[in-house]
Amino acid sequence: MTTLQTNELNSPQRVLLGPGPSNVDPRVLRVMATPPIGHLDPYLLKLYAEEQILLRSIFKTRNDWTFALSGTGTSGMEAALANLIEPGDSVLIAINGYFGFRLAEIASRVGAKVDRIECPLGDIFTVAAIEEALKNKSYKLFALVHAETSTGAEQLNIKQISDSVHRHNTLFVLDTVTSLGGIPVEVDEWDIDIAYSASQKSISAPSGLAPITVSPRARNIIEKRSTPVSSFYLDLKAYAGYWGDSHLYHHTASASLHYALFTALNMITEEVLEARFMRHSANANILWDGLEKLGCAPFIPIQYRLPVLTTARVPSSVNPHTVRNQLLTDYNIEIAAGFGELKDKVWRIGLMGYSSSQENITLLLAALNLLLA
Amino acid sequence: MTTLQTNELNSPQRVLLGPGPSNVDPRVLRVMATPPIGHLDPYLLKLYAEEQILLRSIFKTRNDWTFALSGTGTSGMEAALANLIEPGDSVLIAINGYFGFRLAEIASRVGAKVDRIECPLGDIFTVAAIEEALKNKSYKLFALVHAETSTGAEQLNIKQISDSVHRHNTLFVLDTVTSLGGIPVEVDEWDIDIAYSASQKSISAPSGLAPITVSPRARNIIEKRSTPVSSFYLDLKAYAGYWGDSHLYHHTASASLHYALFTALNMITEEVLEARFMRHSANANILWDGLEKLGCAPFIPIQYRLPVLTTARVPSSVNPHTVRNQLLTDYNIEIAAGFGELKDKVWRIGLMGYSSSQENITLLLAALNLLLA
Repeated sequence: MTTLQTNELNSPQRVLLGPGPSNVDPRVLRVMATPPIGHLDPYLLKLYAEEQILLRSIFKTRNDWTFALSGTGTSGMEAALANLIEPGDSVLIAINGYFGFRLAEIASRVGAKVDRIECPLGDIFTVAAIEEALKNKSYKLFALVHAETSTGAEQLNIKQISDSVHRHNTLFVLDTVTSLGGIPVEVDEWDIDIAYSASQKSISAPSGLAPITVSPRARNIIEKRSTPVSSFYLDLKAYAGYWGDSHLYHHTASASLHYALFTALNMITEEVLEARFMRHSANANILWDGLEKLGCAPFIPIQYRLPVLTTARVPSSVNPHTVRNQLLTDYNIEIAAGFGELKDKVWRIGLMGYSSSQENITLLLAALNLLLA
Repeated sequence: MTTLQTNELNSPQRVLLGPGPSNVDPRVLRVMATPPIGHLDPYLLKLYAEEQILLRSIFKTRNDWTFALSGTGTSGMEAALANLIEPGDSVLIAINGYFGFRLAEIASRVGAKVDRIECPLGDIFTVAAIEEALKNKSYKLFALVHAETSTGAEQLNIKQISDSVHRHNTLFVLDTVTSLGGIPVEVDEWDIDIAYSASQKSISAPSGLAPITVSPRARNIIEKRSTPVSSFYLDLKAYAGYWGDSHLYHHTASASLHYALFTALNMITEEVLEARFMRHSANANILWDGLEKLGCAPFIPIQYRLPVLTTARVPSSVNPHTVRNQLLTDYNIEIAAGFGELKDKVWRIGLMGYSSSQENITLLLAALNLLLA
């Protein structure tokens, strides 16, 4: 065994303008240092009840099954698919970016026969295209990403898509990882069967929890499964047993992360959800104007451009990765590279939650101005 | 939607003497308030490399595949089984308490044909009994709990059991959720194929991460699987891609939790692992003496009684749940009820990591003395 030197943590202070995590408000950070308590402590169980009320208010739902799973956004995605799908079920997955591919991959791993409907990176689906795909075959489930973090496109017409999905007697899973808390999400109004998200994007808590909400229709399907869910860890019925009145032990949830999420959700209520959406939108407009002036015009048409995640064209004169590294090294600003075929063509700039502020945008644009000169 | 009042967190300060989480040292708590950074930030990737060295030193292994998974101890259990088992594989699970049952449940959910070898709650297995069970049939995998948190028994003779398991050409999975950092765990010396643990027990970091280590033999089996692992979220090959040199994106790991785990692991190195084991053992002896004097003799024979988790007999004159509630309400001390058939017969008292101190034991015994009078 090597002998080790004790290392004091000397982590950098970053301005987080990538696809998440976003920066965390000091009020949320402070509660992370609160001494943790047990996973069955009456105080924590009471906190879950309050957290549920807050989660329902940002998901805009009355769903009884509304929890925060002990994992990242990907655990939310896996929970949604693994709990609804039984081996051999046919599902339809919409793919217009990286997280669509991930949905298809996970659905296939939990035993589904996966059909895909695809559109080019950066485009969004028409209601007609989805309607057409649903006509071909009977599907148990249709899954779609609301805000594609890999391209910066917002899928529009969710309500109309949902009508079409339900007309075909299919369940509707919506990925709201990047949208929840940043742009409107209307779970009940849109008749979504499962929506899931992540704590570290537009909610601006540290990562490690995945908010999820399940409609009575989806819950009924889950409760009547003929095979057990392949993942014990992400079994939603077990979550209902733990968060519900019987408080059955399932896993040792992290009080620290729940303290932080609870505080971040309270701050959303304090700001008022609709005002928060307006802040995201107003700040995004400032960023977009600035990017245009720098010759880095946004890649996505304004009609379905996400305010929380912008893909900015890289001027042909510069190496995108050099500039990105300089932003990190010289200015402590994190932005991200493009994904897949967009890798060398765009940067991904997030303005999520606490990170969405005029001071951050002004700093980024000024630093970019220096680096692109 | 209900209008909500913003609630300041007013969480209680508990003395955590249950089966985990344990109390967290203020040095570890402080780093939880550090502003998080991105999951691909060069500083975090460097931290993973240091964390791996520290994890290897407490697992006592040279295994390249040594990570901390983004989930609780149960995610570690599920990762071990889901990555090694392919549908139809025969496995043998040893059950002498609750976590043995959980191993069998998860193995079955990921598609294994599960045989069980059981012994009464509170007993441990003889090498001969396991050897006998392995003779009957060819098994891909054998899984065993090192420290059964539900009973307080330490399974002895792990090295001899491992010899027997490997003589039958079977992989050996060892649950070290409660033991790692509290009592000796010797992954390489014992020739363990996968061992997993949890951050919030004898390591005394907040919960939310699951340390795991994979032998080259197990890694080879995982790399040559003919079917994908059912869980994308807990796919160990994907972890190797993320923690390894290529640093491929897999999920948004929580910098906050890694800051805490890194600090807690450094404190273990600072204390010196063997000195830490002696502290746990010496303090357990003080607790056991005190419990005897109160008429709450430990349930498990001293030969295989765990220093980190003691099941104490409840005197017939008292209601175990009333006393436990009074400890929590009047003294802010958390201990746990018994599990299963031991529910009304014992209390479970943990002395793990930072919680294992003379002041905590003295307080608990004094409070019990008052409540049992």
